[in-house]
Amino acid sequence: MTTVIATEKESNTLREWENDDFIMQQSRLSKASKILNLTNDELAPLKHPKRALTVVVPVKMDDGSTASFVGYRVHYDLALGPGKGGVRFHDKVNLGEVTAMAMLMTWKCALMNLPFGGAHGGIRVDRNKLTKTELERLTRRYTSEIIEMIGPSSDIAGPDLNTDEQVMAWMMDTYSVNKGYTVPSIVTGKPKSIGGSFGLTESAGFGVALSLKRFIKHKQNSKNDTSVIIQGLGQVGSSVASSLATSGFKVIGVSDSMGGLYNAKGIDIIKLANHVKTHQSMKDYKEA
Amino acid sequence: MTTVIATEKESNTLREWENDDFIMQQSRLSKASKILNLTNDELAPLKHPKRALTVVVPVKMDDGSTASFVGYRVHYDLALGPGKGGVRFHDKVNLGEVTAMAMLMTWKCALMNLPFGGAHGGIRVDRNKLTKTELERLTRRYTSEIIEMIGPSSDIAGPDLNTDEQVMAWMMDTYSVNKGYTVPSIVTGKPKSIGGSFGLTESAGFGVALSLKRFIKHKQNSKNDTSVIIQGLGQVGSSVASSLATSGFKVIGVSDSMGGLYNAKGIDIIKLANHVKTHQSMKDYKEA
Amino acid sequence: MTTVIATEKESNTLREWENDDFIMQQSRLSKASKILNLTNDELAPLKHPKRALTVVVPVKMDDGSTASFVGYRVHYDLALGPGKGGVRFHDKVNLGEVTAMAMLMTWKCALMNLPFGGAHGGIRVDRNKLTKTELERLTRRYTSEIIEMIGPSSDIAGPDLNTDEQVMAWMMDTYSVNKGYTVPSIVTGKPKSIGGSFGLTESAGFGVALSLKRFIKHKQNSKNDTSVIIQGLGQVGSSVASSLATSGFKVIGVSDSMGGLYNAKGIDIIKLANHVKTHQSMKDYKEA
Amino acid sequence: MTTVIATEKESNTLREWENDDFIMQQSRLSKASKILNLTNDELAPLKHPKRALTVVVPVKMDDGSTASFVGYRVHYDLALGPGKGGVRFHDKVNLGEVTAMAMLMTWKCALMNLPFGGAHGGIRVDRNKLTKTELERLTRRYTSEIIEMIGPSSDIAGPDLNTDEQVMAWMMDTYSVNKGYTVPSIVTGKPKSIGGSFGLTESAGFGVALSLKRFIKHKQNSKNDTSVIIQGLGQVGSSVASSLATSGFKVIGVSDSMGGLYNAKGIDIIKLANHVKTHQSMKDYKEA
Amino acid sequence: MTTVIATEKESNTLREWENDDFIMQQSRLSKASKILNLTNDELAPLKHPKRALTVVVPVKMDDGSTASFVGYRVHYDLALGPGKGGVRFHDKVNLGEVTAMAMLMTWKCALMNLPFGGAHGGIRVDRNKLTKTELERLTRRYTSEIIEMIGPSSDIAGPDLNTDEQVMAWMMDTYSVNKGYTVPSIVTGKPKSIGGSFGLTESAGFGVALSLKRFIKHKQNSKNDTSVIIQGLGQVGSSVASSLATSGFKVIGVSDSMGGLYNAKGIDIIKLANHVKTHQSMKDYKEA
Amino acid sequence: MTTVIATEKESNTLREWENDDFIMQQSRLSKASKILNLTNDELAPLKHPKRALTVVVPVKMDDGSTASFVGYRVHYDLALGPGKGGVRFHDKVNLGEVTAMAMLMTWKCALMNLPFGGAHGGIRVDRNKLTKTELERLTRRYTSEIIEMIGPSSDIAGPDLNTDEQVMAWMMDTYSVNKGYTVPSIVTGKPKSIGGSFGLTESAGFGVALSLKRFIKHKQNSKNDTSVIIQGLGQVGSSVASSLATSGFKVIGVSDSMGGLYNAKGIDIIKLANHVKTHQSMKDYKEA
Repeated sequence: MTTVIATEKESNTLREWENDDFIMQQSRLSKASKILNLTNDELAPLKHPKRALTVVVPVKMDDGSTASFVGYRVHYDLALGPGKGGVRFHDKVNLGEVTAMAMLMTWKCALMNLPFGGAHGGIRVDRNKLTKTELERLTRRYTSEIIEMIGPSSDIAGPDLNTDEQVMAWMMDTYSVNKGYTVPSIVTGKPKSIGGSFGLTESAGFGVALSLKRFIKHKQNSKNDTSVIIQGLGQVGSSVASSLATSGFKVIGVSDSMGGLYNAKGIDIIKLANHVKTHQSMKDYKEA
Repeated sequence: MTTVIATEKESNTLREWENDDFIMQQSRLSKASKILNLTNDELAPLKHPKRALTVVVPVKMDDGSTASFVGYRVHYDLALGPGKGGVRFHDKVNLGEVTAMAMLMTWKCALMNLPFGGAHGGIRVDRNKLTKTELERLTRRYTSEIIEMIGPSSDIAGPDLNTDEQVMAWMMDTYSVNKGYTVPSIVTGKPKSIGGSFGLTESAGFGVALSLKRFIKHKQNSKNDTSVIIQGLGQVGSSVASSLATSGFKVIGVSDSMGGLYNAKGIDIIKLANHVKTHQSMKDYKEA
Repeated sequence: MTTVIATEKESNTLREWENDDFIMQQSRLSKASKILNLTNDELAPLKHPKRALTVVVPVKMDDGSTASFVGYRVHYDLALGPGKGGVRFHDKVNLGEVTAMAMLMTWKCALMNLPFGGAHGGIRVDRNKLTKTELERLTRRYTSEIIEMIGPSSDIAGPDLNTDEQVMAWMMDTYSVNKGYTVPSIVTGKPKSIGGSFGLTESAGFGVALSLKRFIKHKQNSKNDTSVIIQGLGQVGSSVASSLATSGFKVIGVSDSMGGLYNAKGIDIIKLANHVKTHQSMKDYKEA
Repeated sequence: MTTVIATEKESNTLREWENDDFIMQQSRLSKASKILNLTNDELAPLKHPKRALTVVVPVKMDDGSTASFVGYRVHYDLALGPGKGGVRFHDKVNLGEVTAMAMLMTWKCALMNLPFGGAHGGIRVDRNKLTKTELERLTRRYTSEIIEMIGPSSDIAGPDLNTDEQVMAWMMDTYSVNKGYTVPSIVTGKPKSIGGSFGLTESAGFGVALSLKRFIKHKQNSKNDTSVIIQGLGQVGSSVASSLATSGFKVIGVSDSMGGLYNAKGIDIIKLANHVKTHQSMKDYKEA
Repeated sequence: MTTVIATEKESNTLREWENDDFIMQQSRLSKASKILNLTNDELAPLKHPKRALTVVVPVKMDDGSTASFVGYRVHYDLALGPGKGGVRFHDKVNLGEVTAMAMLMTWKCALMNLPFGGAHGGIRVDRNKLTKTELERLTRRYTSEIIEMIGPSSDIAGPDLNTDEQVMAWMMDTYSVNKGYTVPSIVTGKPKSIGGSFGLTESAGFGVALSLKRFIKHKQNSKNDTSVIIQGLGQVGSSVASSLATSGFKVIGVSDSMGGLYNAKGIDIIKLANHVKTHQSMKDYKEA
Repeated sequence: MTTVIATEKESNTLREWENDDFIMQQSRLSKASKILNLTNDELAPLKHPKRALTVVVPVKMDDGSTASFVGYRVHYDLALGPGKGGVRFHDKVNLGEVTAMAMLMTWKCALMNLPFGGAHGGIRVDRNKLTKTELERLTRRYTSEIIEMIGPSSDIAGPDLNTDEQVMAWMMDTYSVNKGYTVPSIVTGKPKSIGGSFGLTESAGFGVALSLKRFIKHKQNSKNDTSVIIQGLGQVGSSVASSLATSGFKVIGVSDSMGGLYNAKGIDIIKLANHVKTHQSMKDYKEA
């Protein structure tokens, strides 16, 4: 298999999705393909997305004016199932970045053997400059403009940078109004009250902890040989800490923005977690 | 109306359709808007397309390998009716160029009061490197990949650089197989035997002649005050010449790649056309 | 043909569309059917609509709250072609009134041999209490909720009480966004710039004038035997006057809110129209 | 949230669904909302349906005439999933009653945490006056007229007053012919041979028994403190009796239309059930 | 172009549409192709249909039983536009016959340069054994079963052997109920009151007369050299006679089932037509 | 229920699907119906398919010519769920054979209580005369021509005579390109890498073994009373042998194309299987 699509940056002919993000992901793909001994024929179809829709989204602003924003939805590869990927609102979002993220989603789903392909979307907008009503209208019209690209069997959106439960709820509602009935499976990351999954806040931390356990097993270490230090005790760090502690790991150090804590015999993570819950930080926490 | 879409090239953040073609067309739009005294609010929505689909088109090559090509279809503005615009096959085609062409189609249709919007498409491919069977498969799969974007009420394709009657026939057939019945109105520029328009070869030249007559009227000249010299006697030049001669203009000079002819009293265009038809050029032509 | 649908008001079982408007129209239908000697079997299917959709339309208000309004779209009879009928915004609108209006539209189109059936719609809302942005959101969501009922081949909306060009433009845009391309034929009464018909303002007056000419012909009078007095010189009255004057009728009297004018020899309608155009009323007008 | 939809009956402006049934259900909703301390903003959107379709259904009668019937399908709320609700054939059916039933279905599904919204439908017809062939044609044409409103993902019909397995089978067949393949999930309550659920006849009685057990638990009684008397031994009563007896409750009294039975030590329900099965009633049954 | 589809009857492998009708039409096609000097490659694609749907149509009979009938709809060639062709009800109808008729329709439309392809359909049924209500149910269910094959842009039905205006009206109504609005363009030959064409009864005779005039012109005769004798004075014959007489031809002989009439000076066709209208036949007619 | 469809071969009016295969299956159905004491009314609807689509499939051959092939897809009965059935490529395929196979699939699914109806398809082509690229184009265009007949809810294709994993992958890809996203459930028998089931190669042999166990149980034998001889050790035979051996049956004889093996004490099937795996046949195998 030969391909006539440029894969890494060519001198004079910059093309639409070849920004730094995309080129970096292509380089990583090249490295991985060497480790895997892929032939060029095997590598070629992995180097580019399947389709990319760019839309201009007009929004009525609160002052009565109309502003227009550029939005994207990219399907990188749908071979294993419907595309899965976030929607990002950021003032630097562009086609290359969205395509790079869609490529990453493809590898993530495939490595985990999930029946999903990779997709991604976004809008080039500084969310902080919009009021909530403007944000709602932007989200709804964007959803309306990409509506032929998404669906429970073809492409399922989710939250990403600057998009949250509320944005997902607006996307789901816009899609559902269009169909005439409720379609919860069009987005993940929606509020629990309208069908969102339990455990969303803990899942990233549990994933880190799970990966660590696999890594230790792979290295033929045991958890008794392993002591753990965790940097950061926010949503992810806390979940990592509690997950590992529950599994019997010795956590000897933690830190957050207020300082750090070290105890070679192991920190009482549950006690610490209660303190953090009450005081918002580790400050003034005292071991026994 | 304010817009947060960049309109002319910004230093550090090249975006997907901002190549030289698109920037040049935006500059022309800016100039025209000054002549027309458009406000910024009136100008803003004219500066960007409505939607742009980029697809990667896999093609089985004659040697059994598979190659992939990047294709585009852009809707610049559909307010006045279905998009109308060509499909270009060229190895430099990119999103900016296609978007620029779609913008031009919007102005052309609107200026002529045609009930059409502006669209354009293309594939980044060196047509000369493809066999006819490869070209057919490329055209058919490209059509298949953009099929949700086109239709008699939404967007009608036509020939452009390196695409001809045969390419239009393949597009029409692919679309028709998908629908299950013949849909001639999905493309213009198709062969006459399957519904193509009469007069396609003459229409460009007649258009030039018609514009000239309007120009003379606008300048308050008469055709008697006007003598005409035409450079080139190919498909367009011949039609200009015969159209003007039939209308009573005095054509005093013509030239083609073999040389030129001058007669201050006016050249007998019909006699010359017959000579060219027989001899393929003006060579050895003699005025009475 | 027998029918088990109640046709005129029954004592104890008021049903959903049997308000005074609907009952009055049914009475008129009964009278007409006697003049036409219709049998009961011929009359029965004319007495009720084909289908009626009632929707509740949630609208985000400018103060951030959400209000809900009841909207309707009724197809009375589509046998002769797509339904044709207005959309009314009024705080007394109800299912019976909308159904009665849809019945009238059926007779109007059928009597004129137009290839249209009869339909009607409306929203129960006091338009004066809404801001323009609220009105837009109400119109758009209403259109979205009835979108399966309307279409160029099935049902075409138009302006009616408290709905104007702007409301029609919003309906057309909402429908077009849903389809992905511009569909002007979904509404009549839209602004000329997006495909509205010429002559909309004059058409009602010309229709009155035309009916008068037919009436005179029917009575075997001639226009020379007929002198005309017109009450009101607004949009309709002016068109009646100019249309009849142009056809050679003698208009001997006119009146508006400022007073009246009488001239047994006939008033110079063109001169008067110019005066009214300049002075906004007949005040201070003087015949020669 | 403010609402401009009337909620309880207003003096002079009776509206389409405000019959006694609907007003009573709205009153109950008001009472429940006070117990739950709902704000007006929380209550408002619960007070009205989402959409209501009224159709006129023409039916060819066995004598060759055509009769027309009014039919309804109401979606009260679809937020939790596809609407679920019966289809009722009765000569008093009207929009208000159907809407009231659809409201009840919404609460029933939501209270049980079922992934269903609330819907309901019906036809105003005296079923006893129709032959079976007329009933079939009525059911099929009604299904055909509401076909855009129903579907496995949007609204699933079921039997109700005067509609049974046969009616559900006709609805399922009409829907399936329209789609071109069998769609069993469009109705519940269909015959087992075409996909109906097992246990349909017992489920109502089992539900009563289950509710009783929950009630006893809630009151902190035990089943040993509780003796049971059941009035009626038809389909529901028998299921209640056998379910409770199996769970160890002491049933001390039962009655049917033929008389009653009392045994302070507890009745042998299985033996009794066998007697009833054989003799169609409790008559001549003798304990021990 | 080579084809591996059998074209004329092969000894041992009778295939589904190769009955006598189809084989005869293929022979005629072969003859015509020799006159036109078609190559095998040009001829091959003309020898077979595009698609053929065979359906089994269950019908509830008046006695309560269900009978099943075989129905067909064949698209022979749609290259020039939507298929056009009749629906035949006959107890010998089979796939070969229907395919043969669809082939003929293709040639007829193409020879006249009409923008239509060729199609045909039918049901294997002895119409005389059905009551009118059974016929209606058969027609409606047949239409329902082939509904994906037909449409104003894909295939338009018309009357043929044993199908009339009433059958076309049922087909149109079934299709329209399915779409939700009236679609007159789905059939030709419908009653005038629902959109049928004027002149349907005369058109066949006028066509014969027109062909005759062309033939005479082709033979370089004049109408003065030509005298006409017409056999049969039914719907077609009468139209031929009046059309030719109006054009100045001398009709010297006519006949009907009651006898014949000869007048070397020419028969007064208008007078004769009036007689036939009054007396149902030429009997007792007397010239001058 | 009476039927007017011919059921067994009639003398002079051969119809489209009445070839020997179909007539034989109808005879078997008749026999089975007698054993089951079916009434004629119960038997009649089982005797014929629901619908049969015949298509002509044009294919571009490698030499540039176009050949046409006849393809079929038959739905015999979909009452229990989507049709399930193979696609056969053979130069004798015809409508009768395909219909007969679809009938068999109906009985097979129904007897096993699977929620599937019966369907079948095929193309009349000698697969050995096609190159792989021609075969791909044939398969893709055939899929495209029958695309309205198939779908995960309506009809699911599978491999049959001369069609394999690769053909299923082409069908799945063609269907998926048409939908715009991957639809694995449109075919069974696809490669495992794109969602095919595990155990496909063993399933036929395991089925034979399972049937044998049921038969023995039915005959009230035990596996100890039963000795087994297996003819053929290909894909099916090997699976039968290993399945029975694992279950404790004594296999005393096996044969393949190279010869046979007999051991009254029982053959060591696992050892033999390893030998066959290594040497491709039983040749030179020696029992201990």
